[in-house]
Amino acid sequence: MNMDEETEKAQPKDVVWHDHGLSRDDREKLLGQKGLLLWFTGLSGSGKSTIASAFQKRLFDEKRLVYILDGDNIRHGLNSDLGFTKEERSENIRRIGEVGKLFVDAGVITIAAFISPYRKDRQEVRDKLGERFVEVYVKCSLEECEKRDTKGLYRKARSGKIGDFTGVSAPYEEPENPEIEVDTAKLDVEQSVQLICDWLEKEGLWKDESAIHERTGEEE
Amino acid sequence: MNMDEETEKAQPKDVVWHDHGLSRDDREKLLGQKGLLLWFTGLSGSGKSTIASAFQKRLFDEKRLVYILDGDNIRHGLNSDLGFTKEERSENIRRIGEVGKLFVDAGVITIAAFISPYRKDRQEVRDKLGERFVEVYVKCSLEECEKRDTKGLYRKARSGKIGDFTGVSAPYEEPENPEIEVDTAKLDVEQSVQLICDWLEKEGLWKDESAIHERTGEEE
Repeated sequence: MNMDEETEKAQPKDVVWHDHGLSRDDREKLLGQKGLLLWFTGLSGSGKSTIASAFQKRLFDEKRLVYILDGDNIRHGLNSDLGFTKEERSENIRRIGEVGKLFVDAGVITIAAFISPYRKDRQEVRDKLGERFVEVYVKCSLEECEKRDTKGLYRKARSGKIGDFTGVSAPYEEPENPEIEVDTAKLDVEQSVQLICDWLEKEGLWKDESAIHERTGEEE
Repeated sequence: MNMDEETEKAQPKDVVWHDHGLSRDDREKLLGQKGLLLWFTGLSGSGKSTIASAFQKRLFDEKRLVYILDGDNIRHGLNSDLGFTKEERSENIRRIGEVGKLFVDAGVITIAAFISPYRKDRQEVRDKLGERFVEVYVKCSLEECEKRDTKGLYRKARSGKIGDFTGVSAPYEEPENPEIEVDTAKLDVEQSVQLICDWLEKEGLWKDESAIHERTGEEE
């Protein structure tokens, strides 16, 4: 048998998410916002990072606590042991989804910006997060991305210097029903950010007004 | 070759922690606190979860954003693929350290409550976090933990029903220079929490007064 106090503590019969007397709701009230995982998916060069960055700035200016998970802070750290086979890409996305779930539970507006080419992988993250998962398809044709090729990666992929490159030598499965679709061939960065903000507002996810009032009231 | 835009983007020559125009410092100012990883280590039954829970409540009452990582939310999610061999325990702790690093970067006061029996594993987390890592040794003799045996786990371990059990059939390596040592055979929960708070205050980590004033000033 291979068992331990940690598994034992976490048997299905017990409470799985032990809240230690504090819940996501408590943290959301403190922050005056709702924890969300905005999942940006799209081809390399589609504009995920640029829009994520501008969107983050917009939220921060409104005093929202927002955090970006992306290749920079994930592939060097948590997932530094993973490569780019289909299985490893799935495990990459699985772990990011789990981290996103923890961040959402903490009350943070979390942006995940990853190509995340497989529909099944994204669906599994959605299943974990429920209504707190917002898929943002950063849409841009392969032709346009390849024309931009700001990092010269498509050229390298075409010449065979990079293998398993999404759109060239590895598949990209478009989202079928994303909450938000941002077409970066048609919209500029500001318009793209506005589109996302409008959607959040429409869904009542942009701010938690009651919590803001509560917080302000307590501090006065 | 097995390479991708995400690896490419994250080559050592580039900035590893792309801040997207916002830094940890910005988030800490917004929250009025410093991101920290308080790492609770100790035997099963030593009191890690109880103290973590009470400490969290104390911080939350002071309007701090605090989050607990523990077996409940990690072993069922991110690390559900890991067992309890020495290698798997190390990978378990490595991933928790990486998640803790992300939380600290987000500005969150993060409590990790894991037996984490191996000194080397804890040291690696410390190396990643630098001065934002605070080791809290929740000290209690094996005899006392076994006497408490609130979950009946020691009894099961002694009878062979649980293998690889820390303190019984697997080692526990005591911290050599923890920032804080809480002896739960001598201190009650309230005293333990006070000891941790006093240490944070002494080190100037308890609150970021300048940030609080700034935030309050802006809201008035």
